Amino acid sequence: MTRAYVLDTTLRDGEQTPGVSLTSDEKVEIARKLNELGVDVIEAGFPIASEGDYQAVKRIASMNLDSKVAALARTSKKDVELAVSAGVDRVHLFIATSDIHMKYKLNMTRDEVLKSISEWITYVKDRGFEVEFSAEDSTRSDRAFLIQAFKVAANSGAKMLDIADTVGCASPQLMADLVSQVKREIPGVGVSVHCHNDFGLATANTISAILAGADQFHGTINGIGERAGNVSIEEVAVALKTLYNVETGIRFEKIYETSKLVEKLTGVQVSKNKPLVGDNAFGHESGIHTHGILSNPLTYEPISPEMIGRKRWFMAGKHAGSHGIAAMLKDMGIQFDDVQLKEIVNQVKALGDKGKQVTDADLYAIASSVTGSSSKKFVNVEGMVSVTGVNVMPTTSIRLSYNERLFESSSTGIGPVDASLRAIQKALEGTMTLYLREYSIQAVTGGSDSLAQVSVKVEDEAGHVASSTFTGPDIVMASVEAMIDGINKLFLKRGNAKQ
Amino acid sequence: MTRAYVLDTTLRDGEQTPGVSLTSDEKVEIARKLNELGVDVIEAGFPIASEGDYQAVKRIASMNLDSKVAALARTSKKDVELAVSAGVDRVHLFIATSDIHMKYKLNMTRDEVLKSISEWITYVKDRGFEVEFSAEDSTRSDRAFLIQAFKVAANSGAKMLDIADTVGCASPQLMADLVSQVKREIPGVGVSVHCHNDFGLATANTISAILAGADQFHGTINGIGERAGNVSIEEVAVALKTLYNVETGIRFEKIYETSKLVEKLTGVQVSKNKPLVGDNAFGHESGIHTHGILSNPLTYEPISPEMIGRKRWFMAGKHAGSHGIAAMLKDMGIQFDDVQLKEIVNQVKALGDKGKQVTDADLYAIASSVTGSSSKKFVNVEGMVSVTGVNVMPTTSIRLSYNERLFESSSTGIGPVDASLRAIQKALEGTMTLYLREYSIQAVTGGSDSLAQVSVKVEDEAGHVASSTFTGPDIVMASVEAMIDGINKLFLKRGNAKQ
Repeated sequence: MTRAYVLDTTLRDGEQTPGVSLTSDEKVEIARKLNELGVDVIEAGFPIASEGDYQAVKRIASMNLDSKVAALARTSKKDVELAVSAGVDRVHLFIATSDIHMKYKLNMTRDEVLKSISEWITYVKDRGFEVEFSAEDSTRSDRAFLIQAFKVAANSGAKMLDIADTVGCASPQLMADLVSQVKREIPGVGVSVHCHNDFGLATANTISAILAGADQFHGTINGIGERAGNVSIEEVAVALKTLYNVETGIRFEKIYETSKLVEKLTGVQVSKNKPLVGDNAFGHESGIHTHGILSNPLTYEPISPEMIGRKRWFMAGKHAGSHGIAAMLKDMGIQFDDVQLKEIVNQVKALGDKGKQVTDADLYAIASSVTGSSSKKFVNVEGMVSVTGVNVMPTTSIRLSYNERLFESSSTGIGPVDASLRAIQKALEGTMTLYLREYSIQAVTGGSDSLAQVSVKVEDEAGHVASSTFTGPDIVMASVEAMIDGINKLFLKRGNAKQ
Repeated sequence: MTRAYVLDTTLRDGEQTPGVSLTSDEKVEIARKLNELGVDVIEAGFPIASEGDYQAVKRIASMNLDSKVAALARTSKKDVELAVSAGVDRVHLFIATSDIHMKYKLNMTRDEVLKSISEWITYVKDRGFEVEFSAEDSTRSDRAFLIQAFKVAANSGAKMLDIADTVGCASPQLMADLVSQVKREIPGVGVSVHCHNDFGLATANTISAILAGADQFHGTINGIGERAGNVSIEEVAVALKTLYNVETGIRFEKIYETSKLVEKLTGVQVSKNKPLVGDNAFGHESGIHTHGILSNPLTYEPISPEMIGRKRWFMAGKHAGSHGIAAMLKDMGIQFDDVQLKEIVNQVKALGDKGKQVTDADLYAIASSVTGSSSKKFVNVEGMVSVTGVNVMPTTSIRLSYNERLFESSSTGIGPVDASLRAIQKALEGTMTLYLREYSIQAVTGGSDSLAQVSVKVEDEAGHVASSTFTGPDIVMASVEAMIDGINKLFLKRGNAKQ
């Protein structure tokens, strides 16, 4: 085994994540990106699920992608005819083979299940389509019956047999054992695995299957999918290559942008500590780690972030050490000596001990005060009022000061945050052209008085970019503070610091 | 191996997550919960990192918990003396043994590293403390040197030898091989593993080590930690028991509440598809799955959610089928026949095809219109204005109608959302006593005009509970809509529907 094939089911099993609904246009956009990423097969949808899903599958099948396009269907007339009429390359037929599924869900006997497999695979094959067959709940199926079902499927013309760990309860040992037996008893047919992550073992189970001889695996971007999700394609592809030297067709440098697109369109937020694609996967705060990374990144990173299209970053905080803080201060253009550095590190740690996240703005303020360099803000909010309600157009009026001059403006918006940020942009129009490139709110849990963390990324007309984060209980004011802090960082980068 | 020991490092390696800073009080609260959960050892902190961390370790060590308390220290005088003076049960000493760490970070020769191990383990042991020794970056260390380092540690008095996969680059095979060799060559000493999740293999690597004979594993709640985090204790404990019948001391029924506490205090949001503890781990939307679950939960759930202190839930959406929708309608107290059910399902799917998440409120509105039952709201917002700003106390005035009567009130708050929700509670004071039990905002990405999704859980004086979610571009109004929808569901549950 030196090449594993990837069937991406982000658009099918991934979309079955509760609360996720993609429009046809969004599905097409993701399919185009998956094609760039280099997946071998795109499972575009489950045509019977809804009219919209059927139309999306049809559109993707007609896009002439390098990736093959597949559609899911149960072994039943209506499902199969819809899938066939969508014009895909491959029809992915499935029926459950475990006793619990046959008894409680299908209400079918073993013989009826075998007959259904044979009938509908033959039907699809006879119409000239490639057939992949999944035995749903394979890993909890009676082993002899599972093998029998796969034999019927192969004899009926299936080219790929998929071992589905539908409830994510397999171990790596079980997956390897199953794959070996299917390969041994049913030669000449491809073997695939479909792993769910209910116990956190999907990546290991998939790799174990590939090492045991499986030809293909199913997965999704970011591991989205029902319950704890499907296996993450990016994790399997990178681990297979890095740890076992097994190739896939995945273009690693496209991983991060694909992850971000899927996150944006599905709305399923990637956790900070998600392997490879999470915000923190290449972020460092603690002094020991930062020191190591600055000497040689391999000390604390298993692979280079650039390999998957990312960059590393550092953050100040209570665990930070002088090496990391020094690197960040240099990046901000702040001059300091060893005594000042020690004092800055102490103040950063003290702030962290109070339970505070130390933002770049905090570090800048501390460093400015310790080194005696100007910490005067360039832009300041002198006054502001923001209003919303029922039959009230959200409106903000704001007064900003800049270099001892006052700038006022007001703006409506789609909500009070939008109105406030537009008002700031308008107020500064004569001074700088300001683009809000990103705006995000970290998830808030707790009560209505919980702290919200707002992040912005702003850019000026010359291409300077600055990011800022602010945390506070009033989400409108936190947004304004983050925006103003970002603007002041922009002024720093514009070299206006000495004005 | 029938019992694996758990060292929880949520308060140490978990807190090293960039941006996470816990106060001493928060650390004490988490330590108390970890003790209830049944972890064997709580690594309470790294005393040298900051004064606050030292004080927190000291406080936790004095709490007289059932769990042992450990503190981390490098093999150096200052670290060790601080750890010892904190009064912990166990000192966890570490130094790196890989060539890359010794050369680029430590600037030490192999002999210097061995000497340092021997010197500081002896020092700690002689003062009557239990010693655990970690060889940092074990998995990339020269094997012969690693074994030599562990032998020196054992001979100096370490009772536990920890194999640290510092950058998360081990495979399950490597971990098993390492554990076997250490057990074989250094008998009579405990062996531990410390796995990071950079390739998504931390759970599998930890389990592989335990099966190969390791006595203890390190991990964190929710898998927080540097980069992609440490292994998730909850995943390992549940998988060990369920798949391999290996016991830990973890009280499974405490897992979910522990996860929620750590999420709240660290601010590191658990992803929806996180195994076991993510929102979706026991949530179902698709028709096939919902149908199966309703017949027998084991069809689509590997374990019962109650086992870890949770409940399952269903959601309407484009993948939903008639069985799931029927169950949800019954739960809402809505009467329907088969023809109406079919129409409701069609309308839900059509809404999903437009890319919309179908909330309970949407389902209720659709069902009301299809069945012709009253969709009249009980409480309605007739007017509202909310204001915030600089030197402006966030204030909301609101007018609600209920049973053809009007109720007005105003309230200040910590922000406009807080003020608005307080105003609603005040307006209804004479009618119902309303508690806001949960308020959350889903993470927002995109621009300042992105949609925000707000969820609330409200409870009345009789213990009725209702949840609601609303999505809109104005976060203040979305919060009000979610609250009002939750209140109307409460009225439904109070049996006031016929008033």
